[in-house]
Amino acid sequence: MSKISGKLYVVGIGPGNYENMTLRANNALEKSDVIAGYTLYCDLVRNRFPDKEYIETPMLGEEKRVDLALTEASKGKTVSLICSGDAGVYGMSGLAVSMAADHENVEVEVVPGVTAALSGAALLGAPLINDFCVISLSDRLTPFETIETRLRLAAKADMSIVLYNPESKSRKGYLKRACEILMESIEPNRVCGIVWNIGREGEKKEVMTISELGEAGADMFSTIFIGSSQTTELSGFMATKRGYKSEV
Amino acid sequence: MSKISGKLYVVGIGPGNYENMTLRANNALEKSDVIAGYTLYCDLVRNRFPDKEYIETPMLGEEKRVDLALTEASKGKTVSLICSGDAGVYGMSGLAVSMAADHENVEVEVVPGVTAALSGAALLGAPLINDFCVISLSDRLTPFETIETRLRLAAKADMSIVLYNPESKSRKGYLKRACEILMESIEPNRVCGIVWNIGREGEKKEVMTISELGEAGADMFSTIFIGSSQTTELSGFMATKRGYKSEV
Repeated sequence: MSKISGKLYVVGIGPGNYENMTLRANNALEKSDVIAGYTLYCDLVRNRFPDKEYIETPMLGEEKRVDLALTEASKGKTVSLICSGDAGVYGMSGLAVSMAADHENVEVEVVPGVTAALSGAALLGAPLINDFCVISLSDRLTPFETIETRLRLAAKADMSIVLYNPESKSRKGYLKRACEILMESIEPNRVCGIVWNIGREGEKKEVMTISELGEAGADMFSTIFIGSSQTTELSGFMATKRGYKSEV
Repeated sequence: MSKISGKLYVVGIGPGNYENMTLRANNALEKSDVIAGYTLYCDLVRNRFPDKEYIETPMLGEEKRVDLALTEASKGKTVSLICSGDAGVYGMSGLAVSMAADHENVEVEVVPGVTAALSGAALLGAPLINDFCVISLSDRLTPFETIETRLRLAAKADMSIVLYNPESKSRKGYLKRACEILMESIEPNRVCGIVWNIGREGEKKEVMTISELGEAGADMFSTIFIGSSQTTELSGFMATKRGYKSEV
């Protein structure tokens, strides 16, 4: 039996601005000796927590980042491994929970945060409200055929759809392709929205139809919202009804 | 042109305990003259904000609650309409955005919060990580046939699935029925989890197979997580891989 000696918080810090962080995330960072994260995320918290030790690794160094964080924690330190949004949505909590199996003396606690589906929805009004799904267009770890199948099934299910990672410099045209697939069963004037740079400089939202979405300038800092059949536009906002029966 | 005179925040207060609220939600409540909500949610914030005016309405009085909140705001007050979790996920932001169209002098701002899909996932480890969908089993406003169709399509899409409102006193057996539908394409030993009373007294989690889920004692204070084919159990936690390709 090994004794617990260190603590690893896996912390979702929310969309970017400090005030969208939970009190619990803020407390975890305050209690930490070390903050580990992708450089851009470290930059988002550094001015609030200037005296912490920082471990910064580049975007694709996820396993190394988790390993470094666990190694520091196993020395008895308190470490926060930070992700933007929520650590459990395309974040680091999966790797952390899995890799922690080799560090019995480290206690892992996942601290949830506001993911872009929620912070973007709030900016757009109320596009989700009823059932929805969240799909990433990145094919780095998932074959694009799998993503295509999910898009087709999600459109048939008439749920609101949130798309993460719609485009990047190396994945141009992915959103347009996704819209073509969705429009096999969704009518061209379906209400959709894009939000850019949620909670950061350059925050912006636009509501449009799905036929306009593919050319609307999505990038790696944007999140896409496709309404269901029950979504309407209301003076620049999206609003989805709570169901199909008339409300009582 | 009417002048903006009042402010309505639609605030997701998170799963229940104060520290899972965002700093922004906390600030909105602090700035408010009036807090409007379902009695149970008002009880969650009353001890932190004892001096506010409270407007409490029963569970199904949603339209009346929004109307009362907008009426107070249109008198020039700052009002927070609170929901547990996130106001945009089976919450009040849709009604608020829609009904605010009749109150031009009220500015509406939706403040996102941590919904049960995220807070429950954090307790269970990392069941989401990749694509997922969120489906409510309540057929109060959506016909159960529509819900059944969504369950079938979600299972075929091999996404993790989060079920809200799995059972209630008047909807016994709904989760069991949902599991039967999901098992048309999901193998009986698929890793699943239940969380009860997230962030409140009696918080509890259990990891099990989908064949055990229907009889596992879900109620109206529980949230259900069905793993994808890439979800494994790891010493009582759920962990979903980030994709299908081997990680680099």
